[in-house]
Amino acid sequence: LTHSLTLTAIPRIPHIRPGDDVARLLLRALEEAGLALQDGDILAVAQKIISKAEGRQVRLADVEPGPRVVERAGKTPKDPRLVELILRESTSVSRLRPGVLIVRHRLGFTSANAGIDRSNVDPDGLEGEAVLLLPEDPDASAGNLRETIRAERGVNVAIVITDSHGRPFRLGTVGVAIGVAGLPALWDRRGEPDLYGFRLQHTDVGLADEIAAAAGLLMGQAAEGTPAVLIRGLRLPPGDGRATDLVRPIEQDLYR
Amino acid sequence: LTHSLTLTAIPRIPHIRPGDDVARLLLRALEEAGLALQDGDILAVAQKIISKAEGRQVRLADVEPGPRVVERAGKTPKDPRLVELILRESTSVSRLRPGVLIVRHRLGFTSANAGIDRSNVDPDGLEGEAVLLLPEDPDASAGNLRETIRAERGVNVAIVITDSHGRPFRLGTVGVAIGVAGLPALWDRRGEPDLYGFRLQHTDVGLADEIAAAAGLLMGQAAEGTPAVLIRGLRLPPGDGRATDLVRPIEQDLYR
Repeated sequence: LTHSLTLTAIPRIPHIRPGDDVARLLLRALEEAGLALQDGDILAVAQKIISKAEGRQVRLADVEPGPRVVERAGKTPKDPRLVELILRESTSVSRLRPGVLIVRHRLGFTSANAGIDRSNVDPDGLEGEAVLLLPEDPDASAGNLRETIRAERGVNVAIVITDSHGRPFRLGTVGVAIGVAGLPALWDRRGEPDLYGFRLQHTDVGLADEIAAAAGLLMGQAAEGTPAVLIRGLRLPPGDGRATDLVRPIEQDLYR
Repeated sequence: LTHSLTLTAIPRIPHIRPGDDVARLLLRALEEAGLALQDGDILAVAQKIISKAEGRQVRLADVEPGPRVVERAGKTPKDPRLVELILRESTSVSRLRPGVLIVRHRLGFTSANAGIDRSNVDPDGLEGEAVLLLPEDPDASAGNLRETIRAERGVNVAIVITDSHGRPFRLGTVGVAIGVAGLPALWDRRGEPDLYGFRLQHTDVGLADEIAAAAGLLMGQAAEGTPAVLIRGLRLPPGDGRATDLVRPIEQDLYR
């Protein structure tokens, strides 16, 4: 009767290169580790390997910052070419202070530097300094992973593509969902009774974000990083959401 | 060689009443479930049972709202007595809009309604409507739990007292740590090499918050709620932090 949840770091995932088929590489790594996927499993996959496979590396030498960007970049110690890329990936600037550039990403997420990361880009792949943009459409990437796994192995798994975000009022980064397939990203519990029969006040649970944060515990453990985690035992509510369901609509943003 | 993490909902925890010894009730529930604590285990405990045991229930009929509070409460559909309690528990108001009262709690956390919850307060315990305040000092509560368990069973466990918070830019609540003992709440990874030898850019991981979010996956599963979760298998970095380490200092708050 005990309800347990197991998270397993998938070992020996190879370095991912542009054009790689992440679904098949994950399936091979799982099988080499003796792990067979089951219906209801969740795979949490770090954004970085999806972005790399999708060829989202950009060589800084190829970026020409516009004049408005150079002016803005002067307010940060950042490379103007990086600021140009951040602004290209964004719809608005949330906060600009020395050393801080928090934007609303075109996907809706508010985070530092539009999720662009200088670390972990394979220097072998591109000459000179390179950075990695978020996937073009991480919900679609998650859907593709799910469909490929269903086609290859006949199992019905959910996918959460994760990134690490800082928070406005709390220190430390935590895992968040930027792509979702096969589960509700936001779990509407409105009207369910609580322990004493009152209706629950907090009606929506950030389910996919809690999954991403849980996976972050294992992704951050090894010095060399763990880009994918298998989660088994969670009783998922029905539904098939998208990570963009987790974006607070701009008209509900109290901190503009 | 596979690295796994297991989370287990601790079954059959009784309803908690003021004055109850939560440590001994958890130990009894664990043993009845055949679960023996081990060094390095983490217990995630919902704030509600700590607050109840510490007698933090307040009967609304006993609260006299001040005139400034009545004026402010007029801007929300909330009970002025509840607004009085929220403001007493807070050091400043972050956002006040119709239906929204986000404050900086005296413990430093920015959240809705100072963490005061109308649900799950045992109506048998107090006549009339009652609400539940956060523990007086949740880090101390976590430390007490840890010390009692060490004294009773000779094991060295870490404690995370959890609550659910909304987020400014994302929908859905997620588990967060409001009390910590026996682990670093914030994990400083500055200077550690990433996959390709670059230094990590995101230096601090909100470790205790990721643990709280992971536990939230099980705490939210049963309709009747699961107020405590055993987490086993996480390789904890050394250190003994406090949940207040997760509070972004006011001078670093970009969204005041």
